[in-house]
Amino acid sequence: MSEVSIDPDRLWSSIMSLGEIGDVGDGAMMRVTGSEADARARDTVVAWFEDEGLDVSIDRVGNIIARREGANALPPVRAGSHLDTVPRGGKFDGTVGVLTPLEVVRAWNEVGLETDRPLELVVFTEEEGTRFGTGLLGSQVAAGRLPVERALQLKDEEGNTLEDVLESIGYLGNDDPDLSDGAAFVEVHVEQARTLDDAGDQLGIVDAITGICHLEVTLRGEANHAGATSMDERRDAFAGLAAVAVKLERRARELGTTSEAVGTIGKVDVEPGGANVIPERVRFTVDIRDTDERTRRTLKAFAIETLESVADDRGLDLDVTELMDVEAMPMDEAASEPFLEVCETLDVDHRVMASGAAHDAMNMATVVPTATLFVPSRDGISHSPAEYTEPDDVAAGAAVLKRGLRSLTYDGYTGF
Amino acid sequence: MSEVSIDPDRLWSSIMSLGEIGDVGDGAMMRVTGSEADARARDTVVAWFEDEGLDVSIDRVGNIIARREGANALPPVRAGSHLDTVPRGGKFDGTVGVLTPLEVVRAWNEVGLETDRPLELVVFTEEEGTRFGTGLLGSQVAAGRLPVERALQLKDEEGNTLEDVLESIGYLGNDDPDLSDGAAFVEVHVEQARTLDDAGDQLGIVDAITGICHLEVTLRGEANHAGATSMDERRDAFAGLAAVAVKLERRARELGTTSEAVGTIGKVDVEPGGANVIPERVRFTVDIRDTDERTRRTLKAFAIETLESVADDRGLDLDVTELMDVEAMPMDEAASEPFLEVCETLDVDHRVMASGAAHDAMNMATVVPTATLFVPSRDGISHSPAEYTEPDDVAAGAAVLKRGLRSLTYDGYTGF
Repeated sequence: MSEVSIDPDRLWSSIMSLGEIGDVGDGAMMRVTGSEADARARDTVVAWFEDEGLDVSIDRVGNIIARREGANALPPVRAGSHLDTVPRGGKFDGTVGVLTPLEVVRAWNEVGLETDRPLELVVFTEEEGTRFGTGLLGSQVAAGRLPVERALQLKDEEGNTLEDVLESIGYLGNDDPDLSDGAAFVEVHVEQARTLDDAGDQLGIVDAITGICHLEVTLRGEANHAGATSMDERRDAFAGLAAVAVKLERRARELGTTSEAVGTIGKVDVEPGGANVIPERVRFTVDIRDTDERTRRTLKAFAIETLESVADDRGLDLDVTELMDVEAMPMDEAASEPFLEVCETLDVDHRVMASGAAHDAMNMATVVPTATLFVPSRDGISHSPAEYTEPDDVAAGAAVLKRGLRSLTYDGYTGF
Repeated sequence: MSEVSIDPDRLWSSIMSLGEIGDVGDGAMMRVTGSEADARARDTVVAWFEDEGLDVSIDRVGNIIARREGANALPPVRAGSHLDTVPRGGKFDGTVGVLTPLEVVRAWNEVGLETDRPLELVVFTEEEGTRFGTGLLGSQVAAGRLPVERALQLKDEEGNTLEDVLESIGYLGNDDPDLSDGAAFVEVHVEQARTLDDAGDQLGIVDAITGICHLEVTLRGEANHAGATSMDERRDAFAGLAAVAVKLERRARELGTTSEAVGTIGKVDVEPGGANVIPERVRFTVDIRDTDERTRRTLKAFAIETLESVADDRGLDLDVTELMDVEAMPMDEAASEPFLEVCETLDVDHRVMASGAAHDAMNMATVVPTATLFVPSRDGISHSPAEYTEPDDVAAGAAVLKRGLRSLTYDGYTGF
């Protein structure tokens, strides 16, 4: 059989086409789980899967699984990512990991290639955690790390459950979410940092994904008139947050000189929000990450101690909820090895590297041998309308993925 | 003629009754200019004015003027305040200054008392600046400090003009807003700080109102992935705001040891607002006040320098708009003197004091002799559902107001 090739233009055109769904202007993507845009994106991808003759099923948390049968009744190899976006996000994060394996299927179908193992394409629900506050949601459930009932009862800020919103868009399926029976899992993703772009590499093979802690914090003081209340009489919740933010940033910078520690306050809500009213309440998120568990725990402990001491000093009430605490996760060598070999064979500039972002692959890695591949993000920009991966880099990623999946789906693959 | 008395129960019942309009639960008031609640509050008060036989007119910026004729065709004495509230504000701020002079009229009407000068009750539009960002709006126009056309074209966050929203509630009147022809103006207001409550005084006679600067600020950095972007690579707009907030608070505390300087960041909007996205843009307000012009200017200059240096250090784009800069305003001795005398006559515990909050009286003071009277705020709390003034204190304020207005409306009053 002659070598089959992916079609870079077809792949790019699919990415651009999907990128029109949920674009709220100037390329800013709003594809929140359960939104009309999410529904349209899912419908589009499902139609594309069905065009390729894949057998599509939906599980109880809305994960989409599209199966291409293999010659043998072996556990499948799976590849996938997500379609949801952060508010005003980009067109590549998640999408590239859904559409590159689809392009592999299209290329294989063109020449009628049959693999030994089945290949299943996967779209995970609510990877970003934008609506329900819990990221990597679909893969957490699929890896057995979060009970399906708990996931379905998660509520958004308006009180809608995941179950409600999935039902409203027709993606509340019947299948039990369980992807622990696979042979391997592969996720292609944009890097979301500048390592590859700065080095001029086209592909990153991830050896470990960062550990993550998400805290949701409320500080409550006292609303009062901004003019009539002296500085000493105040219990200003926002001033408390500012004090915490400055200390957290300083400590993360210190730890970050010798590790990949980062700390971010990304979501902030200040009430009552009048120009002449001292803030009574702030609600905010704290995101702490590191691929080194020791420094990650150090920074997390620092954040909590700082919250407690600032609240205490300023007479603020403190409430801290830990939304997520996931340990750093190494990727599987055997699952990654074929991709490394392909890079060398095809002479694709590449590097083995850590991921500072969490991915569904880190949940899958707890149940099956898992690999994660990065394509470059221009200027390292992600979670932004300016997010961009060059067409050549997407194509190189798809080409490497195709060859690697060919190895992984081979019955005689001895890596795992 | 026998001494006429105010009716404390009638006054309290009016305050409580008005406090039901715009209560969004647990006593939190939302009476934003041009809202349905604003319309109902205005309609209620206008009906009460008309019940007392007052001649009600509405000017072009929605200020309500209700005239009680006097025996002589002299310039009127005016008394009033506002009905709009901050988001989730209280039931006393503004309302007390509208309903205490109404109670004076009711008391006078009961006994058929005729004053020499006319008395006009005034309700100013958009005192809080909640909707259009410019506080003391109605009185600014009425004192000739802001052209009526500019006021009418101010826009809220949705792009509605003041003209639109006044028209929608039926309060876009025809009269030229000009209250510079009066003999005197008096505003009764809740203190919004704890001076009176701590001292056990029932009345404050204000000798000066604080100067105020309102800045609206935008800091813009770069949205990026919170995990994949190292601390050194970030241009985090919220981290910039936190650095500014900490410095501003520290400097205000320092200056506040020898002055009444205060600095507040009360309204904060963080975009895009994802837990795992580095904030690209923050928009916030800075409120700086002092009755001492020298320290007020020092703190304002410090705020602007700090914004510039933080933006510069962190590679953030900075935009600062000055929404308001009003100098500290002394009250008129002659207009205040009768109230001081009444306190002594009636043995009401009182003090002469500064106001750290701005009031419509500070605009009126630029055109007519003006007095401001404070009633206590329990625990100094204001701009909050917990705002409260004891019925006895409201009644004492009304009693002092009634006697003082009797002096000011006397043709033979020689103070001014």
